[in-house]
Amino acid sequence: MTLWGGVFSQPTDDAVRRLNDSLRFDWRLYDADITGSLAWADALSQAGVLTPAERDRIAAGLERVRAEFMEGTFAAAPGDEDIHTAVERRLAELIGPVAGKLHTGRSRNDQVATDLLLWLLSAQRRIVDHVCALGAVLLRQAERHLDTAMPGYTHFQPAQPITAAHWWLNHFWPLTRDVERLERAADAWRARCPLGSGALAGTPYPIDRQALAERLGFTAPSHNSLDAVADRDHAAEFLFCLSLIGVHLSRLAEDLIVFANPSFGFIRLDERYSTGSSLMPQKRNPDPLELARGKSARLIGHLAGLLVALKGLPSGYNKDLQEDKEPLFDAVDTLDALFPPVIGLVNTLVLVPERMRAALDPAMLATDLADYFVTRGVPFREAHALAGRAVKLAEARGVSLSELSAEDLATISDQTGDDVARVFDFDAAIARRAAFGGAGETEAQLARAQAWLARRRIAAPE
Amino acid sequence: MTLWGGVFSQPTDDAVRRLNDSLRFDWRLYDADITGSLAWADALSQAGVLTPAERDRIAAGLERVRAEFMEGTFAAAPGDEDIHTAVERRLAELIGPVAGKLHTGRSRNDQVATDLLLWLLSAQRRIVDHVCALGAVLLRQAERHLDTAMPGYTHFQPAQPITAAHWWLNHFWPLTRDVERLERAADAWRARCPLGSGALAGTPYPIDRQALAERLGFTAPSHNSLDAVADRDHAAEFLFCLSLIGVHLSRLAEDLIVFANPSFGFIRLDERYSTGSSLMPQKRNPDPLELARGKSARLIGHLAGLLVALKGLPSGYNKDLQEDKEPLFDAVDTLDALFPPVIGLVNTLVLVPERMRAALDPAMLATDLADYFVTRGVPFREAHALAGRAVKLAEARGVSLSELSAEDLATISDQTGDDVARVFDFDAAIARRAAFGGAGETEAQLARAQAWLARRRIAAPE
Amino acid sequence: MTLWGGVFSQPTDDAVRRLNDSLRFDWRLYDADITGSLAWADALSQAGVLTPAERDRIAAGLERVRAEFMEGTFAAAPGDEDIHTAVERRLAELIGPVAGKLHTGRSRNDQVATDLLLWLLSAQRRIVDHVCALGAVLLRQAERHLDTAMPGYTHFQPAQPITAAHWWLNHFWPLTRDVERLERAADAWRARCPLGSGALAGTPYPIDRQALAERLGFTAPSHNSLDAVADRDHAAEFLFCLSLIGVHLSRLAEDLIVFANPSFGFIRLDERYSTGSSLMPQKRNPDPLELARGKSARLIGHLAGLLVALKGLPSGYNKDLQEDKEPLFDAVDTLDALFPPVIGLVNTLVLVPERMRAALDPAMLATDLADYFVTRGVPFREAHALAGRAVKLAEARGVSLSELSAEDLATISDQTGDDVARVFDFDAAIARRAAFGGAGETEAQLARAQAWLARRRIAAPE
Amino acid sequence: MTLWGGVFSQPTDDAVRRLNDSLRFDWRLYDADITGSLAWADALSQAGVLTPAERDRIAAGLERVRAEFMEGTFAAAPGDEDIHTAVERRLAELIGPVAGKLHTGRSRNDQVATDLLLWLLSAQRRIVDHVCALGAVLLRQAERHLDTAMPGYTHFQPAQPITAAHWWLNHFWPLTRDVERLERAADAWRARCPLGSGALAGTPYPIDRQALAERLGFTAPSHNSLDAVADRDHAAEFLFCLSLIGVHLSRLAEDLIVFANPSFGFIRLDERYSTGSSLMPQKRNPDPLELARGKSARLIGHLAGLLVALKGLPSGYNKDLQEDKEPLFDAVDTLDALFPPVIGLVNTLVLVPERMRAALDPAMLATDLADYFVTRGVPFREAHALAGRAVKLAEARGVSLSELSAEDLATISDQTGDDVARVFDFDAAIARRAAFGGAGETEAQLARAQAWLARRRIAAPE
Repeated sequence: MTLWGGVFSQPTDDAVRRLNDSLRFDWRLYDADITGSLAWADALSQAGVLTPAERDRIAAGLERVRAEFMEGTFAAAPGDEDIHTAVERRLAELIGPVAGKLHTGRSRNDQVATDLLLWLLSAQRRIVDHVCALGAVLLRQAERHLDTAMPGYTHFQPAQPITAAHWWLNHFWPLTRDVERLERAADAWRARCPLGSGALAGTPYPIDRQALAERLGFTAPSHNSLDAVADRDHAAEFLFCLSLIGVHLSRLAEDLIVFANPSFGFIRLDERYSTGSSLMPQKRNPDPLELARGKSARLIGHLAGLLVALKGLPSGYNKDLQEDKEPLFDAVDTLDALFPPVIGLVNTLVLVPERMRAALDPAMLATDLADYFVTRGVPFREAHALAGRAVKLAEARGVSLSELSAEDLATISDQTGDDVARVFDFDAAIARRAAFGGAGETEAQLARAQAWLARRRIAAPE
Repeated sequence: MTLWGGVFSQPTDDAVRRLNDSLRFDWRLYDADITGSLAWADALSQAGVLTPAERDRIAAGLERVRAEFMEGTFAAAPGDEDIHTAVERRLAELIGPVAGKLHTGRSRNDQVATDLLLWLLSAQRRIVDHVCALGAVLLRQAERHLDTAMPGYTHFQPAQPITAAHWWLNHFWPLTRDVERLERAADAWRARCPLGSGALAGTPYPIDRQALAERLGFTAPSHNSLDAVADRDHAAEFLFCLSLIGVHLSRLAEDLIVFANPSFGFIRLDERYSTGSSLMPQKRNPDPLELARGKSARLIGHLAGLLVALKGLPSGYNKDLQEDKEPLFDAVDTLDALFPPVIGLVNTLVLVPERMRAALDPAMLATDLADYFVTRGVPFREAHALAGRAVKLAEARGVSLSELSAEDLATISDQTGDDVARVFDFDAAIARRAAFGGAGETEAQLARAQAWLARRRIAAPE
Repeated sequence: MTLWGGVFSQPTDDAVRRLNDSLRFDWRLYDADITGSLAWADALSQAGVLTPAERDRIAAGLERVRAEFMEGTFAAAPGDEDIHTAVERRLAELIGPVAGKLHTGRSRNDQVATDLLLWLLSAQRRIVDHVCALGAVLLRQAERHLDTAMPGYTHFQPAQPITAAHWWLNHFWPLTRDVERLERAADAWRARCPLGSGALAGTPYPIDRQALAERLGFTAPSHNSLDAVADRDHAAEFLFCLSLIGVHLSRLAEDLIVFANPSFGFIRLDERYSTGSSLMPQKRNPDPLELARGKSARLIGHLAGLLVALKGLPSGYNKDLQEDKEPLFDAVDTLDALFPPVIGLVNTLVLVPERMRAALDPAMLATDLADYFVTRGVPFREAHALAGRAVKLAEARGVSLSELSAEDLATISDQTGDDVARVFDFDAAIARRAAFGGAGETEAQLARAQAWLARRRIAAPE
Repeated sequence: MTLWGGVFSQPTDDAVRRLNDSLRFDWRLYDADITGSLAWADALSQAGVLTPAERDRIAAGLERVRAEFMEGTFAAAPGDEDIHTAVERRLAELIGPVAGKLHTGRSRNDQVATDLLLWLLSAQRRIVDHVCALGAVLLRQAERHLDTAMPGYTHFQPAQPITAAHWWLNHFWPLTRDVERLERAADAWRARCPLGSGALAGTPYPIDRQALAERLGFTAPSHNSLDAVADRDHAAEFLFCLSLIGVHLSRLAEDLIVFANPSFGFIRLDERYSTGSSLMPQKRNPDPLELARGKSARLIGHLAGLLVALKGLPSGYNKDLQEDKEPLFDAVDTLDALFPPVIGLVNTLVLVPERMRAALDPAMLATDLADYFVTRGVPFREAHALAGRAVKLAEARGVSLSELSAEDLATISDQTGDDVARVFDFDAAIARRAAFGGAGETEAQLARAQAWLARRRIAAPE
């Protein structure tokens, strides 16, 4: 039994019904739907539309429907075209015709908009927890490697030495932006409870929408009923936040995949977080990382898809908006599935400091050589050219930059002192970058990161 | 039991396993997988790796596994990480250790590449059938309205009169491009059977890959094993073809949605193909059309997502490629679900010729007035300006363009003859556009369309 | 002269140089670049790297370069591969070798990251102004039409009557979300000044990065130098904000384009904001609206493109990041070009209340009929069915819903009273939706909108 | 002077004009536009609309306009809103009022559709040449390294040895698919010349559209005038083809970027194709490769953007379609700029065979060990497990797989013969993959590739 048959003389075509029906994916809104209906029953009661007894009966019935969902005993019926219909149909079976009063002054348009926002706010909290948990294991790894030197790359070419902790922390801070972005967004979402907007024009019953909004955890009702039923900005914003999380995971994954290749050998994955080959017996593949990288693409696709669906729609609810849910659900499922393995993998992988140090080349200290000349009064631009010539000289001689003698260097600049050899110390070079945020103040940076995380109260997994 | 445990000392983490496992979506490759394995068993037998008896035993076992899938009795086991593992595991249960010979010289990399192509070729044929079936009902509608005049729009403003058949046919020809694009693409896909490429380096057994390819309906084997296992160009190309089909459906849907609004009232939808409102008893909503428009967005999102997943991958198989299947499957499911309702809706909707004619305004014949001046020797550019002035004069007078008298028009140009009134005949204006492809040769155009479709042998539904 | 030639023996290939060079588009960062360099010179001076005299000389030189850009007299030289090189090259020409000290402890990596953020913050303010200005003209239109009744649509089918003001306001509130989202985002961007991050590892000079950040209008420096030079989250976030603005414009445009079609005739565009046809003299096309709708696609494409560019990059600066600027610049240019015409068009268009009212159909009051039954004790679900039957009865009789007599209605429900005719009053139906955000409290809603806008101090254009 | 002012009383708003005007980007259609106009003048003449003298005068005038464009002397005038207006305006200046006859029976809608197709067909040929030229240098590199062994990777982990030629060729075959796809697409584009479709309804003059089409290099005219002016399928298809080319370039770039990192050291870039750092004197960065990878994102963004622009448009020309050109132009410019540096870089880079061979590990022959057991009758599945145990034993012993003695291996399987040591030969392992497309038949594969390329007659650059 649909909720709308009255004016129709003929049954809906089966293929139309199958296309239209959304219960196969929107069933997961059941909790939000029932929570919203409980609040609506309250509001109707306060508006004098329901008697307290009716309200109580409806509320008790709704809780029974919720219990059936939670226990897995809820049975869908043929006409259950969506979760709203399914819940109301079951409610009527349980409590009789009074169930028919629940939808007074309400439409599925404001109902689904509310359900989706409630679901979104709950998913947002879970995603924040995932992100913080990954942050926590990154910090644990950073803590272990405050003094491990490694090459820092730009253009994926050796650039300057950094600490492994600095590199780990470089993957931490983007996550803090992700969390703060999600927190800011959720604050905004809470300021626009759509319930009470009706189908498009508002509700003719004297509903106190501010109280209703607060009852559901919102801070305020939406301002315009026509906008409220068609607003999916929050869905797009959430998908954007998730896409950027995906991008950050993909960059972490790319580093780790490449560093796990034996030509680098910077990391060793725990066997529990790698997989083998059906053909090649020796393989240990970093599948979770490849999937993290690959699945970031899916998130971007979902974001694009939703924006496209919204583009060019006329005002008010259009059925195109039904396309909001599946990308959202899939995006959240994707991250729900992705974070635990990635967290476990990062938590258990082992860095190989000796391979990292072996990849350092004295030429990575050419900037320090230039800075040495600067301290002796050479303008940086000229010092840069001198250091470049030194690198070239070393290459021509077939030696490393640090193997050039002070005499060799003196042929390049008369500003070469006896102390020039002191330049060629990777650890000292790192320590010199002691300004805020530099590789030489990693310990302080780690403390800042830990303080940030402590405010979110998320513990790293063991 | 995975296919690759030998070198591992520890079991895979559960969350990793769940993330990695693809059986929940790749089970639908079962038919392709078994077809591919049958061909591979043949090839191994011809190469002397399997005896004929072993080959026969494996073939019989594979057919039993296929029967279990078709009958719905196949039971997944805990270690079945993908369809390939599941089939081989079940085969071993059914026929014993000889099953272990099937994977000789093969990898899941070339196996899945082959499975996906076989599935794609089959999905491609089904999509072509859908598109042709929609084409057929468009032609049926066009046939009914060869003489129905309606406004043609540009910029969604009235431009010139056309026939309704011409408008219907305008939605037909894009579908022919879709079909031909899919046919061309499939020809190319058939020229690169990846089976026999091994994991990346080819197979060390003397497999006749040309014969193997032909056995599977391909025309040739792939040229490079490393490329073959990582090539997903066909997946992207298929998603592009489907996206463009989606765009064409969305444009048809947009026209129909707007024309179904009572301010136009050009069409009436059959009740079986529209739905109602839970709040507003009078509503009849064109949901299938809105979903056609909305779901075109999802297809674009999937296309973008897959291209993103492929971008920047290193050579050879990477697990990111597992992200190819879900967007493909969902895109095909989407169109499988969308076409029947859209076809039914178009087939049953009723055009309202009197509303279409009522929307014609003589100002839409201003170009014909300009052309009239051209026939009397005025250069078109000047004639255009004269006709513009006539429109302005009519507006100033508050009359329609055709209500201007010959005298009025004579004040605008001395090239106005007594026969100028003959310009203002919508049907004659249509008939004048008799050059190939114009609104005045709709009947011939329809015949061309019917001939095109006849070559595809798809009948329209009743 | 590039800034980096020292180690190279051979000149760069011309095609590489052309591909690499970014001055053709990044010249527009000149103001940000010079502002950043002035702050850096200060910071170097405070750190004792520059003497006050050197700092002053550099500062004076930089201001001269800025003046050349502003006056249009700056002349690019062959080696000017980007804006940073161009500025430093010109500075050296103007002030001699001391210019070579400016780049001490700095890299183009932290420099360009800073420049881009400064530009972004400035563009963000301009976009906010555009959006508010559009909001202001929407409110002006709403103010004029507080009592104009029109059909509200869902599924683009007539649903319930609303006021034209309510419909206008429905396009206003999304803009407030856009503005608030941009404001929140900019607050976050200001908390991470990258200057002083060097190429990746930080700066070895004792720079006070907090003071430096504040000098540039930031609130704090970035936490990690490796992250800071590769962070483009703000660019993606800005493009997302712009994409959603584009979506909102596209929805406004869609409404207006359709309403401007004569079958609706709800609005008349001012001639200054429509254009004609080279062939059809009578045409008046809503080009700015079509471009608003069309250009929203470009914004979505740019967002997708940037996220794709970021996906899967290894840590640290990679040249791929150069792809951040063109989509950003084009997106901002697009909106800079789009808003003024759209604002002008909305400001000058004329609503046609009589056409809007003529499009109202009594069947749009079917929900009110159901609500009437509810007030007489019928549960809503049953009342909905009764109203549906009434609509059907009216259709069968060929009359409008309001033309059914009380007797006719009484055959449908014995809850029909003599006062049922009072249901069929469009204005009363609107007024009944008096709950917060409903069509019946448009005046209060308008006041809230005006208050919101007043806080942004943007006046509508005349 | 616009072409359409007649009916308008007021001038267009300046901001609207700026938004609308497309001459700043569509000027590059000048050649196509003039070519199309020449053909149209012929067609008008054959239809009796122009006298031969008029036709000749117009043709001569058009050639003069073309010459002005080619010589760079064409001067735009204030009213030149697009290339079509500009050309017709200039033509009128040059030849007087007869120029006003050229637009007879034509609209800018069919004109621009034709221009774009002509431009597209020409761009398509250039892109094919670029792709073939890259293919040629890949083959030249492959030719040099038929016997160079290197690790083949899957999951970016060492998998099996291959030849460097096989790896190079793995980047060649995708290019052949790109070329063939472009060729197939262009064949289809040529079958639908839109000229003669008018604004939407066709042309009222007796134009022989088949002859007109052939005059312009098409094979047939378009079938439906309404579709023809709004069809941008070819634009989307071209962008898809370019996106996939971009993806292929990005994968080549990713391999080369990683292989150029000293931890791999597989390749050395020529200095002419790498760049330095403003801060770090020793840097040699693979910028062209990073840009190839990064710019593939832009192409995907443009494809998505165009599909979004087309989605949901009503029938006929809408101004949104103006958004087709900029992404197309930019995509083609991007590849025009990208290919020469990438081709030069690939052509000049030097492979380092000794580093490639040093990265081979005997564990990569574990599959060959399994195959060895297979030759001795062990089913592959069991042989795979045995080889896995051998790898594990070697790891436990701290030796490489090839350092296990025959006795060690005998403890794993009694199928170990004295000849087992022969398995551990990288070159022999490669040679064993001799089936079609395998690493062991690279020479034959190269011959096939050369034959493919020879049919395209593109020579590699020196």
